[in-house]
Amino acid sequence: MKFIVQKFGGTSVITGELRDLVAGKAISVKQEGYTPVLVVSAMGRSGDPFATDTLINFVKKENRDTSSRDMDLLMSCGEIISGVMMAATLQKKGYPAVCMTGAQAGLITDNTFGEARILRIEPDNIIKHAKEGKIVIVTGFQGVTEDGEITTLGRGGSDTTAAALGVALDAHYVDIYTDVEGVMTADPRIVEGAKPREIVTYDEICQLAHEGAKVVHPRAVEIVMQKNIPMRVKCTFNDAPGTLVTSTGEVNKGTIDITRDRTITGITQIPGLTQFKVMVDDGAEGLKLKRRLFRGLALAGISLDFINVYPGMVVFTVKDDTRRKASQVLENTGFTAEITPNCAKVAAVGAAMTGVPGVMAAIVEALTREDIQILQSNDSYTTIWVLVKRDDMERAVRALYRQFTAVE
Amino acid sequence: MKFIVQKFGGTSVITGELRDLVAGKAISVKQEGYTPVLVVSAMGRSGDPFATDTLINFVKKENRDTSSRDMDLLMSCGEIISGVMMAATLQKKGYPAVCMTGAQAGLITDNTFGEARILRIEPDNIIKHAKEGKIVIVTGFQGVTEDGEITTLGRGGSDTTAAALGVALDAHYVDIYTDVEGVMTADPRIVEGAKPREIVTYDEICQLAHEGAKVVHPRAVEIVMQKNIPMRVKCTFNDAPGTLVTSTGEVNKGTIDITRDRTITGITQIPGLTQFKVMVDDGAEGLKLKRRLFRGLALAGISLDFINVYPGMVVFTVKDDTRRKASQVLENTGFTAEITPNCAKVAAVGAAMTGVPGVMAAIVEALTREDIQILQSNDSYTTIWVLVKRDDMERAVRALYRQFTAVE
Repeated sequence: MKFIVQKFGGTSVITGELRDLVAGKAISVKQEGYTPVLVVSAMGRSGDPFATDTLINFVKKENRDTSSRDMDLLMSCGEIISGVMMAATLQKKGYPAVCMTGAQAGLITDNTFGEARILRIEPDNIIKHAKEGKIVIVTGFQGVTEDGEITTLGRGGSDTTAAALGVALDAHYVDIYTDVEGVMTADPRIVEGAKPREIVTYDEICQLAHEGAKVVHPRAVEIVMQKNIPMRVKCTFNDAPGTLVTSTGEVNKGTIDITRDRTITGITQIPGLTQFKVMVDDGAEGLKLKRRLFRGLALAGISLDFINVYPGMVVFTVKDDTRRKASQVLENTGFTAEITPNCAKVAAVGAAMTGVPGVMAAIVEALTREDIQILQSNDSYTTIWVLVKRDDMERAVRALYRQFTAVE
Repeated sequence: MKFIVQKFGGTSVITGELRDLVAGKAISVKQEGYTPVLVVSAMGRSGDPFATDTLINFVKKENRDTSSRDMDLLMSCGEIISGVMMAATLQKKGYPAVCMTGAQAGLITDNTFGEARILRIEPDNIIKHAKEGKIVIVTGFQGVTEDGEITTLGRGGSDTTAAALGVALDAHYVDIYTDVEGVMTADPRIVEGAKPREIVTYDEICQLAHEGAKVVHPRAVEIVMQKNIPMRVKCTFNDAPGTLVTSTGEVNKGTIDITRDRTITGITQIPGLTQFKVMVDDGAEGLKLKRRLFRGLALAGISLDFINVYPGMVVFTVKDDTRRKASQVLENTGFTAEITPNCAKVAAVGAAMTGVPGVMAAIVEALTREDIQILQSNDSYTTIWVLVKRDDMERAVRALYRQFTAVE
């Protein structure tokens, strides 16, 4: 059997019209001679009747400290409800279909409740049902331990389920359905000419996700990458081909040589950041102070991003919503900081950027031309990013987009 | 370990106050040195957010003919949600607790979805958690097939779960919690002096249930009866001892000899019935007609109760809500019937009634004294019942109650 795993997010199954679209995707894959296996998330968003958050809030109201083991068991119901709903939709259309829980689909995990890791998949049960001609729907985001305890996979869990099933079934494709047309060169809400990439590498999509373009969870990409299963990012609302995600080697075998054809994969942005500039003396005493600073922030559960340590100065950013907590920690540990709230990170991501000279210079030039102040910057293997004021974010994205589209 | 299985219905877990009461029952059993194992049903009634009917209606709206296999998977979520909720309540009170699905509790069934039969229970997992000091909550009404398919047990499923667990754990008691004080001598809403029986036999409670006093599902009673596990019908809202349900042998070993001490166990009533009197000629032709009559009704899915076949006449009752359908069938098959809608069946139930002379005479006398017309009557091994007009039902119950309380 030639499997295609199709993953649909929670917002794709909330209304009858949307479920019809989803069913259509499965049916057309079937008509092309493939065997579709669907992965679905829990319905909708917080507030929807059977959303994961609705279930969580319901029990947390009784006891905020309900064991993570029991919370996982509870949460697993969210995906079961939407999975059965999709089975109902397909059955209505005359297609035999069956909803399988993570446990029934053979998705074995460790026992880290709330954030379980998939150990292996035993897909016999899926294959059995598929051989009987049924469209199999697997509840995303969940698995089972060797002992039969129900677990959930944490953030991006349904993507991870789809990727792991893709590997276990040696699927032709793992298709991730979203509300955008694929992996975009920039956010279409900001850049008018933004368009979907035809093809990106596994590395590139991970980098894009890391820098704020969250179309697929990086964990899922890492899984398909190991077995070189091609992934496609597609749109639930149209029949566009979407973006093919594959290995650099595969890409270069084809007609498109991305290292020659383009410098960047895309422009991304992350708003809602606050920059802290902390003055710290150097020397042994300063080292002790720095250690105390980072320990204090870690103990308070504040995650830092973009840490630059300079002589006499430490610069880092936190999310706007932990700003207050972070400045409290600084105060308690006796530091004074220069705090710049309402910042945004704008990044140019591209595997092909490595070793291309003048990229940072081009970025600085593009932003300076627009009178945009660069508060901080950094470059890594595949990404160059700058921190700017939130108010400058859109202009910065557009400036970088123009710069790199021109270069291409 | 000395287990006590405690079963709580769906209306016992809907509010925080009720869950506190339920938790209190488990905790006090634990403090007495027993190991409580709770069985819970899905929350509340139709319309409540996570009630079984709410889930069913949600999916049936999409597809009325969703496979029974998938409906069972869906329905199992109802009990999981209330089970986790009870675990949350107990954990909040400082008692380690864990919610286990039917599958995790080792409740193996056949694959008759919607009405599965328990094949066996493998209680190792329950015992393991209990040994670790946890209060185990098992989701009622559900099990798992050998192939890992989730099943539900049909009507009275949670009672059945509790009973089967009682047997598997060799429990000291299976306690069925209700909103009444036990097995009542008559419906307290009708008879002012009605009181809970201290003790009844397995047979008696099955008979009472069959005749309309549905405190425990007869299937559950049959299960505990096989291994002679005593059952107690108790009230969630107070600490009254409730009613002990046990074997006749056990009862007679004690101080109470029910065959000497009382004639009846209780008076029950079932309203909402329609009586059909159909005239059919005797002889070969009449036999053919009768056969056609019963086949026609069976094909229409109408279940008959109280069938009396007399020379030249057949009398039977159906539920009021199938009256129209039944008269349609009669018309189509060419019969004319005398139809009496709005009837009620009133029964006197008691294992000890067997062989006691004059019971029927006493009943006829009691009702005649009250000017209540008897439309039909029957007596079986442990039950005597009469059909009366619905308007006479309450008076009939009270008349019989007085009659038998006087006899006792």
